[in-house]
Amino acid sequence: MRIALGVEYSGQQYYGWQRQQGMPTVQGCLEKALSKIAAHPVGVICAGRTDAGVHATGQVVHFDVEVDRAEPAWTLGVNSNLPKDIAVRWMHPVSDDFDARFSATARRYRYVIYNSPTRPGILAAGVTHIYHQLDVRRMQQAAPVLLGEHDFSAFRAAHCQSNTPYRNLQEIDVQQRGDYILVEVKANAFLHHMVRNIVGSLIMIGQGEQPVDWLAQLLEGRNRTLAAATAKPNGLYLVDVTYPEHFGLPRWAWGPLFW
Amino acid sequence: MRIALGVEYSGQQYYGWQRQQGMPTVQGCLEKALSKIAAHPVGVICAGRTDAGVHATGQVVHFDVEVDRAEPAWTLGVNSNLPKDIAVRWMHPVSDDFDARFSATARRYRYVIYNSPTRPGILAAGVTHIYHQLDVRRMQQAAPVLLGEHDFSAFRAAHCQSNTPYRNLQEIDVQQRGDYILVEVKANAFLHHMVRNIVGSLIMIGQGEQPVDWLAQLLEGRNRTLAAATAKPNGLYLVDVTYPEHFGLPRWAWGPLFW
Repeated sequence: MRIALGVEYSGQQYYGWQRQQGMPTVQGCLEKALSKIAAHPVGVICAGRTDAGVHATGQVVHFDVEVDRAEPAWTLGVNSNLPKDIAVRWMHPVSDDFDARFSATARRYRYVIYNSPTRPGILAAGVTHIYHQLDVRRMQQAAPVLLGEHDFSAFRAAHCQSNTPYRNLQEIDVQQRGDYILVEVKANAFLHHMVRNIVGSLIMIGQGEQPVDWLAQLLEGRNRTLAAATAKPNGLYLVDVTYPEHFGLPRWAWGPLFW
Repeated sequence: MRIALGVEYSGQQYYGWQRQQGMPTVQGCLEKALSKIAAHPVGVICAGRTDAGVHATGQVVHFDVEVDRAEPAWTLGVNSNLPKDIAVRWMHPVSDDFDARFSATARRYRYVIYNSPTRPGILAAGVTHIYHQLDVRRMQQAAPVLLGEHDFSAFRAAHCQSNTPYRNLQEIDVQQRGDYILVEVKANAFLHHMVRNIVGSLIMIGQGEQPVDWLAQLLEGRNRTLAAATAKPNGLYLVDVTYPEHFGLPRWAWGPLFW
């Protein structure tokens, strides 16, 4: 029997999603909790392997179990075996052809910048603090050039394992809410560090250190060493994963929090 | 020289505001950091002494120093000596007749409820999780009876040290945003546990366990033992303090976060 789960977590205390011997990871905690409920070892596959310090409100996983348990076992029961900063939001039985990674047609990330002269005291590990005032209109003008199918080598981590540097960016949006700036991106998939590298370059443009057309130059140059430093993981959230409708997965608020 | 500061903190790791020997408290951390910058012992007075686990985005304090330091010393300098979950947001020099506690004419609190069948994974210590679905309209209908000057004995902690049970509630408002419910109250001052006792009773009404006119009955009865249990500290934030305009204190976003 195959089950899909929606999972929320704060990445602050974890060495990223992926299980590593002797390290606290989100996958490690989740598999341990699921194995307890299933009473046999359970391995999970996720939609997006988030890095150390990166959060998720809309991570999706699937796993196979040999036992039949009522729905609350996979939500409330698993949650009572998870640390406080990881929580299952929903469960849904799926057919055997569902794969949390390969069935996904798109991923959506949100990046939350706290733009203030002083650092935050609340959710400090859940936002990226930029004390230089950012010109949001410049960031909004700069971003759309990345839309569509491109070779994103300029925004790709050196150790990225993807076979191809091509990705299709379906949405990119920069919004301001008080002292917060939200950068939101949706693509079929992302290269390693792609969101954080794009945001790092947008921040340089917002600070006036690079021209508004800099993203176009970077994209064209396909040279990672010319783009800005990778933005911190603190502000990054995997908020949604899109699957074909026939799988019938529930829709959930993207978050984080009130957004 | 007297200085006022705006302070934000997550109360999760602290035994409340008030200094206690051998315990981590917000006041203790702040006085230690200020004393370092001032190079002499500094004691602070605050607008509202928050309980263990209660947060603030708009706490205001004052203190006296014998040294003249540029503004960044009291913001960036102090922040670099504070733990990550406490931050100074602004500083303002004030006249000697300013008192963070006694000059305050009103305090505003926000209480954040996460109303969802499953618990939160993000900001778990910064929201109060209620898994029963709440009827927000019932809470909205119930709340206004508390407006105005009343004897709030029904919502007063047994160990409250105030001379009088009378307070003037100037605003009370219940809003919903997705899975979040925000209860917002403003009064000249609050009795001990008053906000959390009001919210606890509003939650009972929202769950349908008490009638909409229950708050009026409780208020009339003046008997704390009849009201609901005190709501958890997790969701409570001191977000604003009002002072006479001539002190010229800066205005700041209430928060928490994007609100």
